[in-house]
Amino acid sequence: MPYVNIKITREGATAEQKARLIEGVTALLARELGKNPATTVVVIDEIDTDNWGIGGESVTVRRRSGR
Amino acid sequence: MPYVNIKITREGATAEQKARLIEGVTALLARELGKNPATTVVVIDEIDTDNWGIGGESVTVRRRSGR
Amino acid sequence: MPYVNIKITREGATAEQKARLIEGVTALLARELGKNPATTVVVIDEIDTDNWGIGGESVTVRRRSGR
Amino acid sequence: MPYVNIKITREGATAEQKARLIEGVTALLARELGKNPATTVVVIDEIDTDNWGIGGESVTVRRRSGR
Amino acid sequence: MPYVNIKITREGATAEQKARLIEGVTALLARELGKNPATTVVVIDEIDTDNWGIGGESVTVRRRSGR
Amino acid sequence: MPYVNIKITREGATAEQKARLIEGVTALLARELGKNPATTVVVIDEIDTDNWGIGGESVTVRRRSGR
Repeated sequence: MPYVNIKITREGATAEQKARLIEGVTALLARELGKNPATTVVVIDEIDTDNWGIGGESVTVRRRSGR
Repeated sequence: MPYVNIKITREGATAEQKARLIEGVTALLARELGKNPATTVVVIDEIDTDNWGIGGESVTVRRRSGR
Repeated sequence: MPYVNIKITREGATAEQKARLIEGVTALLARELGKNPATTVVVIDEIDTDNWGIGGESVTVRRRSGR
Repeated sequence: MPYVNIKITREGATAEQKARLIEGVTALLARELGKNPATTVVVIDEIDTDNWGIGGESVTVRRRSGR
Repeated sequence: MPYVNIKITREGATAEQKARLIEGVTALLARELGKNPATTVVVIDEIDTDNWGIGGESVTVRRRSGR
Repeated sequence: MPYVNIKITREGATAEQKARLIEGVTALLARELGKNPATTVVVIDEIDTDNWGIGGESVTVRRRSGR
């Protein structure tokens, strides 16, 4: 019954990669806490780099300066 | 003053349907808890089926196999 | 499969009231969007009034001044 | 290490405005709570006006009637 | 830089179990998407069973009837 | 009408400090985006250090080793 929300920057994650995140986090919760995979919900949000900030600046600006 | 976030898969909900969700959940909070509708906020997130997982697999995959 | 998060101030909602919120919002999603109640998840967060702000001040301060 | 999520309606905020939100909220957390800017994360969600409700109706409807 | 929020019912997860969730989901994001573990943030919310609903009823009620 | 959620570790923030966060972020949204303070909602979540992970380990463990 757990609910997991994963937020990442929108930088080209493929459907296959996202499927592996869903599969992996569902298995992790089953293994560590005995949670039922059938009712484990995972929602992935992909966020534009203009809308994600760290260190007081957007990821767009950080990428531009090579970080 | 409540805040409600509703996440659904992006599968064609219309503006009218979403308006009824907003109206219905606002009325529910007024009726059951006496919350003021004027300051009740509702945010609906529509999530791509690749980005929603249940049972360890994405909704895209589940739909494809007829579930 | 929807996921609903309801945030309210912690001001004495009873288990019965919260059960009616869960029941009501689950029924609303079934009625308006045809969502399966069996996999509809509802999470209610009760937030201390010191930690909820509106209009630039906390609910604690607003309650104290009779609002 | 704080995490801040800002949700606004999608009504044309520019990259520059969003950069100032990121900068401002990161500075606020450093000034008021001594939080390290380097690990402060800010995520801005821009929500379609059909998907944001207040007062029991969508922002789309409110804008249309001049509110 | 990902942000992960895991919501589970409050039913006695230990600090060690939660540490393994943090470690596991951080490693998963590094392995599948090449995300930097140093800036991966994980927040676990433990929710009272009165406040978690599935199938239109609270987990408290479901546990009581042996589900 | 914006909604802001601030998550910090539970390490003794006072009501006064939280009031200044609420005031500051509400003013920031008014100044930068012209948002109406009267309907700006801020919710602060304080998270136990066992439940907050960064760099693959909990803040409890990091604090213990002097980080």
